[in-house]
Amino acid sequence: MSARDIQLDDQGRLRHFLTIEGLSREILTEILDYAENFTTVGHQPVKKVPLLRGRTIINLFFEVSTRTRTTFELAAKRLSADVLNINISASSTAKGESLLDMLRNLEAMHCDMFVVRHASPGAAHFIARHVAPHVSVINGGDGSHAHPTQAMLDMFTIRRHKGDFTRLSVAIVGDIMHSRVARSQIHALNILGVPDVRVVGPETLIPVEAPQLGVHVYHDLAEGLDGVDVVIMLRLQRERMSRALLPSEHEYFQCYGLTPEKLARARPDAIVMHPGPINRGVEMDSAVADGPQSVILEQVTNGIAVRMAIMAMTLGRAGGEA
Amino acid sequence: MSARDIQLDDQGRLRHFLTIEGLSREILTEILDYAENFTTVGHQPVKKVPLLRGRTIINLFFEVSTRTRTTFELAAKRLSADVLNINISASSTAKGESLLDMLRNLEAMHCDMFVVRHASPGAAHFIARHVAPHVSVINGGDGSHAHPTQAMLDMFTIRRHKGDFTRLSVAIVGDIMHSRVARSQIHALNILGVPDVRVVGPETLIPVEAPQLGVHVYHDLAEGLDGVDVVIMLRLQRERMSRALLPSEHEYFQCYGLTPEKLARARPDAIVMHPGPINRGVEMDSAVADGPQSVILEQVTNGIAVRMAIMAMTLGRAGGEA
Amino acid sequence: MSARDIQLDDQGRLRHFLTIEGLSREILTEILDYAENFTTVGHQPVKKVPLLRGRTIINLFFEVSTRTRTTFELAAKRLSADVLNINISASSTAKGESLLDMLRNLEAMHCDMFVVRHASPGAAHFIARHVAPHVSVINGGDGSHAHPTQAMLDMFTIRRHKGDFTRLSVAIVGDIMHSRVARSQIHALNILGVPDVRVVGPETLIPVEAPQLGVHVYHDLAEGLDGVDVVIMLRLQRERMSRALLPSEHEYFQCYGLTPEKLARARPDAIVMHPGPINRGVEMDSAVADGPQSVILEQVTNGIAVRMAIMAMTLGRAGGEA
Repeated sequence: MSARDIQLDDQGRLRHFLTIEGLSREILTEILDYAENFTTVGHQPVKKVPLLRGRTIINLFFEVSTRTRTTFELAAKRLSADVLNINISASSTAKGESLLDMLRNLEAMHCDMFVVRHASPGAAHFIARHVAPHVSVINGGDGSHAHPTQAMLDMFTIRRHKGDFTRLSVAIVGDIMHSRVARSQIHALNILGVPDVRVVGPETLIPVEAPQLGVHVYHDLAEGLDGVDVVIMLRLQRERMSRALLPSEHEYFQCYGLTPEKLARARPDAIVMHPGPINRGVEMDSAVADGPQSVILEQVTNGIAVRMAIMAMTLGRAGGEA
Repeated sequence: MSARDIQLDDQGRLRHFLTIEGLSREILTEILDYAENFTTVGHQPVKKVPLLRGRTIINLFFEVSTRTRTTFELAAKRLSADVLNINISASSTAKGESLLDMLRNLEAMHCDMFVVRHASPGAAHFIARHVAPHVSVINGGDGSHAHPTQAMLDMFTIRRHKGDFTRLSVAIVGDIMHSRVARSQIHALNILGVPDVRVVGPETLIPVEAPQLGVHVYHDLAEGLDGVDVVIMLRLQRERMSRALLPSEHEYFQCYGLTPEKLARARPDAIVMHPGPINRGVEMDSAVADGPQSVILEQVTNGIAVRMAIMAMTLGRAGGEA
Repeated sequence: MSARDIQLDDQGRLRHFLTIEGLSREILTEILDYAENFTTVGHQPVKKVPLLRGRTIINLFFEVSTRTRTTFELAAKRLSADVLNINISASSTAKGESLLDMLRNLEAMHCDMFVVRHASPGAAHFIARHVAPHVSVINGGDGSHAHPTQAMLDMFTIRRHKGDFTRLSVAIVGDIMHSRVARSQIHALNILGVPDVRVVGPETLIPVEAPQLGVHVYHDLAEGLDGVDVVIMLRLQRERMSRALLPSEHEYFQCYGLTPEKLARARPDAIVMHPGPINRGVEMDSAVADGPQSVILEQVTNGIAVRMAIMAMTLGRAGGEA
């Protein structure tokens, strides 16, 4: 069974949201279009719509991520759903309950959606393959594999600023090798028709199979940024350094840290993105992070709207009606 | 003051739900009947009823149990109550606040219900004896003493499958001695008029006073299951083994693990129950757990309806109106 | 920029609530008057008002305080707001995210209010100085600096019992030096016009600058209580003792513990208050804590109404309409 089969129902509508890979341009565009409806909710005095009232959404977190949990919990509450947070390490797996038995139990309680965060690649897929027909699964990040809601909020942000994807140059800078965010972004950019996707980073952090992913590889930041419309800086996982994959933070910043000078190589209207949280002075200078080309906080705002859209589409199977 | 006095108000209606012991067949039947009203809520698109809207329910957990907390939190939210989770070890008892002072404080904040989970037998009773007149207490499990909501969801599940309690044979298999679930089930089965309640297990795990509880004791599984309508497997607390009360898991499974072959001694339409989480290959074979006679997941589903009923009855004192 | 500037908007209405210091008698009275509207909410069957429906309130707790978190969470839910609890030690600051970046992110998610609890004096002010124009900050206790909502619920309780502030004698007893509660109470009592504010405690626990705060200093409990209308006992932080600032608990109780005999020096209709949780037998005898002059549980009840008022005023900027 391919990923596409799992993610779509028999009418081709989005049922789970596990990975960008294998989804069509139509589906991605539908998500982006649908998310537009929710951008105004955050500005209303009553920041809620009743779309998922009485639905039960479980944040099933096998690793702690307050940040990700918060965005999904907010999105769910603004759709009027009931949300339960279940932190698995502190839970019944400690009692020797198997994951599948736990899923069966939560399904039996008529839970409608699992937002899954797990350190292992494929965990959300595994869960999606085994849930009951009425349950939807959203991948909230699985190891270094995928972080598809992050990629979609990035696409949403790019579209809002740049419009047509089919004429863009986009550079993704940093630790491509270990980044679930980069992996999901590359798929999304390709599917949406971006003709020039570049990855920029030291050799040790670019996977050898990168060219097969439809990207151009650069090891020099200035070259990689030359003339691009969008610069996506990745978060540097500091723990990598101790494993000798990386030079010091200082050296890294010298080579790959984004400064106003280096950014000047991009188009004057280029936007700068980062999935957060930023390591200021490592991935980028504060002058860039807080500068006029940064859309980093817009990404956060858009993240709520995009997650609301994905939750409402998968649970409501009603992407066309807002 | 007897347990009956504490649990009922002066009009004989359920005020607290602490133990099955001492409750009448009428009250238990009222709970089961009332729970029928809530079985459809989980299938509705909006899985909520407004019965307890604006009421405040506190999950007062002195020991961690994500599983139990989840069922009560879901039940409360589907009744539209506001729920607060308070984990006591991480809380103000650390500041030297006495339990009674903490209760007085929560009452002063106009909380309406405490769902109490505690490692010590009698903790929920203690709390119920000391709360203000407007507060109801539900026992969510107190040491090896009682787990009355579990017993009621089991009775509900049995009634749905078998109808009349007064013609049934029910076998409870495993560690009877240390099981709050077994204790509550035995009381409920007796009160509801089940003529043949059997307990099955090794001598070390059957309390010597078992015959006085109105049960028949079996040490041989095949004999104990002979002709029964209902088989209730208990969860084996693995930590008992290290205390030399039990042989190895393997030996235990040889003697008391439920396999399709052993189950064949029960009536062909016998149902198999387990409070969860199952230790597969210890208490039962997966062929049984996932087999056609298993109603284990129905128990979980019914658990929400039964807890909703008990919460609505005690807080609403409105068992007759759904 | 003075504290007054930060706390009020340009029309002089309460925007943040960080400290009592610098607020006018009019504002404090407005809070007390507005809180009167919410005292009945706790007695209604549906304990909710829709004033903050669809607003998002974040409990931003940098130190664990289940008790304080519970009161704010209850107040927010009774105003129909959505509440998210974020415990920072277990959160993204672990990922090296700066506090300001975290604030920017939460603002970008359109959160409306931060209730801040922090071990460092000034933390809530710092946050308030940096939040976006649409966000309100409530100080839920910052080190030994201030605990202004506690002080306001104390003022509310005093006014309910004593009416006119301008004819009262109030004694605050205990560790004045380290108490954020005392500091906030002294400011509030002064602003509301109480002519006789006394602090009572051992020399080591009274700040040398006390007389400049507009209080009278007593080291003898009996003298300090002589003829007062209100006795406020502070909680003794037991950890101080190990630091040799205090004699043993027993000795402390001999000198400064409140007994019925010592309380007899106050006016016969004097009320006894304590912010909780009480160390019985240290700060006061149970005969006093549970006696006819104690209003300690009323303080807890009033705490919900006062916090609702402050939240509704700052977020709604609608203090005049209930």
